[in-house]
Amino acid sequence: MATVDEARIARVLQVLGEGHPGSQLLVTDSWSIYYLTGFYAEMGERFSGLLLSDGERPVIFDNALFPIDEYDNADVVLFSDTDDLAGVLMARIDPERPLGIDAQMRSGFLLPLQERRAAASFFLGSYAVARTRAIKDQRERELMRRASQINDQVMAQLPSLVHAGVTEREVASRLSGLYKELGCDGFSFPPIVSFGANAADPHHEPDDTVLGDNQVVLFDIGGQYRDYCSDMTRTFFWGEPDEESARIYDVVRRANEAAAAMVRPGVRFCDIDRCARDIIEQAGYGPYFTHRLGHSIGMQDHEPGDVSLSNTAVVEPGMTFSIEPGIYLPGRTGVRIEDLVLVGEEGVEVLNSYTHEPVRLDA
Amino acid sequence: MATVDEARIARVLQVLGEGHPGSQLLVTDSWSIYYLTGFYAEMGERFSGLLLSDGERPVIFDNALFPIDEYDNADVVLFSDTDDLAGVLMARIDPERPLGIDAQMRSGFLLPLQERRAAASFFLGSYAVARTRAIKDQRERELMRRASQINDQVMAQLPSLVHAGVTEREVASRLSGLYKELGCDGFSFPPIVSFGANAADPHHEPDDTVLGDNQVVLFDIGGQYRDYCSDMTRTFFWGEPDEESARIYDVVRRANEAAAAMVRPGVRFCDIDRCARDIIEQAGYGPYFTHRLGHSIGMQDHEPGDVSLSNTAVVEPGMTFSIEPGIYLPGRTGVRIEDLVLVGEEGVEVLNSYTHEPVRLDA
Repeated sequence: MATVDEARIARVLQVLGEGHPGSQLLVTDSWSIYYLTGFYAEMGERFSGLLLSDGERPVIFDNALFPIDEYDNADVVLFSDTDDLAGVLMARIDPERPLGIDAQMRSGFLLPLQERRAAASFFLGSYAVARTRAIKDQRERELMRRASQINDQVMAQLPSLVHAGVTEREVASRLSGLYKELGCDGFSFPPIVSFGANAADPHHEPDDTVLGDNQVVLFDIGGQYRDYCSDMTRTFFWGEPDEESARIYDVVRRANEAAAAMVRPGVRFCDIDRCARDIIEQAGYGPYFTHRLGHSIGMQDHEPGDVSLSNTAVVEPGMTFSIEPGIYLPGRTGVRIEDLVLVGEEGVEVLNSYTHEPVRLDA
Repeated sequence: MATVDEARIARVLQVLGEGHPGSQLLVTDSWSIYYLTGFYAEMGERFSGLLLSDGERPVIFDNALFPIDEYDNADVVLFSDTDDLAGVLMARIDPERPLGIDAQMRSGFLLPLQERRAAASFFLGSYAVARTRAIKDQRERELMRRASQINDQVMAQLPSLVHAGVTEREVASRLSGLYKELGCDGFSFPPIVSFGANAADPHHEPDDTVLGDNQVVLFDIGGQYRDYCSDMTRTFFWGEPDEESARIYDVVRRANEAAAAMVRPGVRFCDIDRCARDIIEQAGYGPYFTHRLGHSIGMQDHEPGDVSLSNTAVVEPGMTFSIEPGIYLPGRTGVRIEDLVLVGEEGVEVLNSYTHEPVRLDA
């Protein structure tokens, strides 16, 4: 017999009610369902959902292909591929009340509910789960710390994998084993290994590029430890760095450290981004910092809530997110330095301890 | 300079117009965008889209983080993480006309468009792309044939990997190398390797289960060859099969072969499913065939359009889908036999040739 997490659900409904009083919420994101119920299934194009409503028993909707326990404090509604899914959902949705939908729900499930007027209105309700998941409890904080400690240990082993003639793909192929040896279940995202000009693409995928003289070597890596993710970037040098790579390394490092240092409860995310961006702009590289400063992280590598100019929300104790400024010079070189931070009651805990000093791998 | 596929886009708009005259379509599925434009990006939680409208130039919306070529026959609109995405889209969507949305689009992108009345109405429009993608052209048919030939070759090597004391995970860990040696880029889905009672879970993930005496050994595997997927299941025996496993093997085999034999243009998908299901029901195992008979396949392992009792559409030349009856006896054993079929102008071509005869791996 399984149990849904009543405290987390109560918190979700409280946050939902502050924004949309008297509404109900349909959660469809697999990780959010897992967070609230302990049930996880990678549904692909199929549906699973959790219907939450003040004063009602939670309802878990599950495709019968995916085995699920019975719950002592929730109803489980099973359906099959050939059932009328909208009808199944409508048997439990209150048509007189607004229905919150999470951002991840596929439009293919939402549009039929709208057409059939399954609820009084539909609104984007995932903020309620996102704000609850954003605040990590003590157990989650401990797992986030441990995941990043492991990531530091993996990063420390990477210099030994780099040698003249190696390719990005060869280095990347060694990573999975390193994480598993240290107790991770796998990657938290496919690792990025970029040599030289490839580092100018923030999302470069490791390929057959051979390491050349006097290049940067960028690693953006993370593992999943007991459901929680790490994520860190370091940029190394192979040989003597060219003048521009050395200069942007220094700028990015200062941006990283200044931004991390200002994190504390009450500071706005946009101001943290602004702090790092100002340093990069003042150095003349503003147009080459092409992404937000960071993203929330937890059970998923990217969780809702980013560190960007458009996020005016304030930082709260228990939040975990990345600080990852970068400068990308297309066709030439790129540098990114990324750490995870955990917000404490008063200040900030940087979860990664691997050095920010420039490191030459050929030394 | 890149080029969108005008013939495919014309076909999509024709199909769209038959269902929703005078409408426009916003395509967001990464593989559908790739099929129509040649541009592929795994966007994660970010947005990419293709806006199609009769008589208008196609518009590709791309997050500037994901590099894209210029197009000689389409507009490219770049935006960044901090832009107002709904506003970016609304600058090109015609507010006076209905807007088709694809099933895969996240509600987090749809709901703001609805709130801001970006179009006259919103409807589920992915059928237009799905019906176009469902009909493979000659080049695609050749790639589907080749992908399944490779899958036959991989399946033929699996018996040599099975021996006393081996675990599911050990066998599964060898598969990636086999596909790559034969020219595939990777799996078309994570392989299923199930020993004994694990075969009763259709979606079992390979674990540390050790092969036991007189068990079934089920492989559900596929590779991706030049963007096209294979997908095949065979159930072997290790040792003498128990009476029930042997019996359900025979039932499943007959269901597979009878269903495949009736495939030809004009037959309804639901009748193909019914044919296989009847055979299994008549043998007394109806409740243990818990899923649809098959799914469409192409660039993705699962494409819209399934072989199920609820799909009354008819089979057309150029379609490719799976025929995969199974019987699952929880806690005991399970059998599934799956082939891909390609519909010809008159009949059917079964793309897999690996034997349906029961095979003992210990012989």
